[in-house]
Amino acid sequence: MLGLMQSQQLLISSLIEFADRHHHEGEIVSRRVEGDIHRCTYRDIARRSRKAANALDQMKLGFGDRVATLAWNGYRHLELYFGVSGSGRVLHTLNPRLHPDQIVWIANHSEDQVLCFDMTFLPIVKAVHARCTTIKHFIALCDADKLPTDSGIPGLQSYEAWIAPHAEQYSWPSFDENSASSMCYTSGTTGNPKAALYSHRSTILHAWAGALPDALNMSARDSVLPVVPMFHVNAWGLPYAAAMTGAKMVFPGPAMDGKSIFELIEAEKVTFAAGVPTVWQMMLGHMQHGDLRFSTLKRTVIGGSACPPAMITAFNDVYGVEVLHAWGMTEMSPLGTVCTLKNRHMELDTGEKMAVRLKQGRALYGVDMKIVDDAGAELPWDGKAYGDLLVKGPWVIAEYYKGEGGSPLVDGWFPTGDVATIDPDGYMQITDRSKDVIKSGGEWISSIEVENIAMAHPAVAMAACIGMKHPKWDERPVVVVVKKPGAEVSREELLAFYEGRTAKWQIPDDVVFIDAIPLGGTGKMQKTKLRETLRDYKLPGV
Amino acid sequence: MLGLMQSQQLLISSLIEFADRHHHEGEIVSRRVEGDIHRCTYRDIARRSRKAANALDQMKLGFGDRVATLAWNGYRHLELYFGVSGSGRVLHTLNPRLHPDQIVWIANHSEDQVLCFDMTFLPIVKAVHARCTTIKHFIALCDADKLPTDSGIPGLQSYEAWIAPHAEQYSWPSFDENSASSMCYTSGTTGNPKAALYSHRSTILHAWAGALPDALNMSARDSVLPVVPMFHVNAWGLPYAAAMTGAKMVFPGPAMDGKSIFELIEAEKVTFAAGVPTVWQMMLGHMQHGDLRFSTLKRTVIGGSACPPAMITAFNDVYGVEVLHAWGMTEMSPLGTVCTLKNRHMELDTGEKMAVRLKQGRALYGVDMKIVDDAGAELPWDGKAYGDLLVKGPWVIAEYYKGEGGSPLVDGWFPTGDVATIDPDGYMQITDRSKDVIKSGGEWISSIEVENIAMAHPAVAMAACIGMKHPKWDERPVVVVVKKPGAEVSREELLAFYEGRTAKWQIPDDVVFIDAIPLGGTGKMQKTKLRETLRDYKLPGV
Repeated sequence: MLGLMQSQQLLISSLIEFADRHHHEGEIVSRRVEGDIHRCTYRDIARRSRKAANALDQMKLGFGDRVATLAWNGYRHLELYFGVSGSGRVLHTLNPRLHPDQIVWIANHSEDQVLCFDMTFLPIVKAVHARCTTIKHFIALCDADKLPTDSGIPGLQSYEAWIAPHAEQYSWPSFDENSASSMCYTSGTTGNPKAALYSHRSTILHAWAGALPDALNMSARDSVLPVVPMFHVNAWGLPYAAAMTGAKMVFPGPAMDGKSIFELIEAEKVTFAAGVPTVWQMMLGHMQHGDLRFSTLKRTVIGGSACPPAMITAFNDVYGVEVLHAWGMTEMSPLGTVCTLKNRHMELDTGEKMAVRLKQGRALYGVDMKIVDDAGAELPWDGKAYGDLLVKGPWVIAEYYKGEGGSPLVDGWFPTGDVATIDPDGYMQITDRSKDVIKSGGEWISSIEVENIAMAHPAVAMAACIGMKHPKWDERPVVVVVKKPGAEVSREELLAFYEGRTAKWQIPDDVVFIDAIPLGGTGKMQKTKLRETLRDYKLPGV
Repeated sequence: MLGLMQSQQLLISSLIEFADRHHHEGEIVSRRVEGDIHRCTYRDIARRSRKAANALDQMKLGFGDRVATLAWNGYRHLELYFGVSGSGRVLHTLNPRLHPDQIVWIANHSEDQVLCFDMTFLPIVKAVHARCTTIKHFIALCDADKLPTDSGIPGLQSYEAWIAPHAEQYSWPSFDENSASSMCYTSGTTGNPKAALYSHRSTILHAWAGALPDALNMSARDSVLPVVPMFHVNAWGLPYAAAMTGAKMVFPGPAMDGKSIFELIEAEKVTFAAGVPTVWQMMLGHMQHGDLRFSTLKRTVIGGSACPPAMITAFNDVYGVEVLHAWGMTEMSPLGTVCTLKNRHMELDTGEKMAVRLKQGRALYGVDMKIVDDAGAELPWDGKAYGDLLVKGPWVIAEYYKGEGGSPLVDGWFPTGDVATIDPDGYMQITDRSKDVIKSGGEWISSIEVENIAMAHPAVAMAACIGMKHPKWDERPVVVVVKKPGAEVSREELLAFYEGRTAKWQIPDDVVFIDAIPLGGTGKMQKTKLRETLRDYKLPGV
């Protein structure tokens, strides 16, 4: 027997339509590429995203056709989020930090028909456009009078000229909520990049889950600054959750330095900001230098990589800002866990609370997770046993775009490639990436733990731990270290530094000093490249 | 093109499964019919709801078969919420405040197969069981040794004895998320009661929307007391939202007096309570008497009827508790609007904020609403124009169970039967029930406004305004008044009290004093009965 409730597809167009009707006055503030501050409302965004949808219709773009963006966080990018997906096309957010050759490869693989780009990225587009064989239309996200006349890009038009002639009225189409809405390629440390293809349904459910008090906690009283880029995993879904809740949005554009971000937070009364640790590190540096304080910022959610305890303490104790760890993946839309406390933690002392806060957090309803051993057997949630982390849920991928790489699922679960523990309260902590774990004498050594100890040494700027083949132990850890400018530490001093900080057998066999550790497009260490660099390396005594 | 996300049906079983895995230690505290306090965890609820599901399977109950409850808020009722719906049956919550004849009519109409009841309601079940022709199994929600031997109810067994022999393991079935999960009959002021038939999908989406910061704002740090009954519209969906978020649940059982509720709030560190104004009135009375204060309560959501401004002020100013108005209907699962403020209200002064707080609030994402005139044309959102309120959304009914009353929808919108204004910020305010509006000389007079003025007179305990036929004006208002014990006020004094408080033509033509105003099963004034009582009444001068 079926229920007798109204049948209504969960579509991204309903988010902007809702914001238009119920939060039309809500503000969208953007720092533009030109450096000025642009202000508009949800009603403006709704109106202009309908114009963009009409413009796409006129281009005769089909249902499901890909429209790519190469853009910072800003109001025009937001209009495309709704105009492209809402009209039935697929928004493909390209990552401008990738190498131009990768951008070409990805644009051709996804068969993009249109590319909309910020003027910052004009040099990239100039370099790649001739090789992007499927793109028919190039749109510069700028005013008509800012369009360069000598770009050499055929048919280039400005976004404003493109949408100007079109009607503000548009009847958003209704279709299956499982239709594709947007896509994002993973950074792909090995092999070619692969794309997650999100659906309208997965996006809406993810936005609901993400806006909950125990996740990003978003309301119509918030002013939200996504430092996380809209070109990567939809800025953690914040643009959708904001339209859902009527939160004010503040977009930093290209100005990601500590001073610019701090000033925007203050000027726009930001209550909540989300980003990766490096951005906050720059901002804290700026604030310490000027002895500055926040007036309105209440919380930040930090993801992408683990947040150093010192940063959590600084935010909390010095600046009165709650720092929440979050964890997710491109393949998870991306939110999986957020580290908010439970009732039973409220009576813990500061140190005990910090021990919880250092974990990646607990699953949002919708996501389930488990850890398994090498044989695939589920491991206990005791906070000690660690194994491969698997997840499932309606905003986790079932497969990659075009079936690349075959089915990634194991009995319906997606293997995250992370190694983790889960404690009895359900708090997950990443201990390593599966491929980076060092398997020594039948035991696992966490490369992250080895790196964290090195990083705690005052002379170390960056550290990467990799496993080297060993005839007896299978693998043994080696730590590759970049020294701070002007600082000195010897191999022997650093190895001695490990004494008492970890089990004896987990101390690396060697230290290799290097000028720089290779980083990928999203700022992660590229251990594959590092291993290539060290291919002639031999472990001492082997 | 379809997205490539995991396909996962939204099922109620996933809520308790999630709570079991991720919030197993979360507490469920219940005051029982016996008067004692019972404590258990989500893991216990999960375990026992699986036992109940096995017990239902053994009864050979089919998919979609109805299992009725006649029960207070408590842990066993919660187990049935998950065990019945999770196993594919339909939970039918009967309202024990209805007349036994109505209960018989409803149980037969819904074709209930099983009835589970609290011992408080044994007299009702004794009186009705022989006439409930489809019920095959009667289960008393009590320990095995509390079961009466002389009930006369054939095959009566205790809940504990019923579930005891069954396994704790149960594989929740997977099925279409649009399947019926639960049902609730409307109080039905005219005609026979009609039932809303909720689906798994509508219930899960409603729980997500309801748990958001701008709605009920539920987290794993909350301790939630639903004073709203689980026998009516699923206690506003709180049992589902609590399992979703891991909030502690505190159930008051049958002890709904001010003292019992207050003591439970204090003892169980309740942070959030939801209920109708009358319960809070009793609690405030108890607190004023004993000069008591709350230690942990932060907010209450009040629905069912409008909250008197004095109560909002008392909660806020004296007790430091935020009071939120909410509005909904059985046909809406029930949440439609909640009155939380927006960014732009934060700088208003107390009086201006209060003017916003007195409204029923703004729509949750998922629900859309509009007001229309007699011809069905949409009216402006200016806070002044009032018209019939219509709603739509995935947790609004499409039709009633068994198609009773035909299709209720108008162009896809559900007519709520309320008359309302909507202001430019999207805040809706109920001005009347459609059928209670008095149409005088082509203009509408709000019966609620007329009643509110009478209620503001110190001698008036209760007031009901109804329209009386008038040869010239079509209808004219008459106010029917119950005086406070020992208080006195004359017809002329009360009519004079209206001077300056409303437009002259909106002042009632007459006052009728009466001993009591008839109330329905959910505590609402039954104006239909009142009109019958006054059928021989003549307006003065007519």
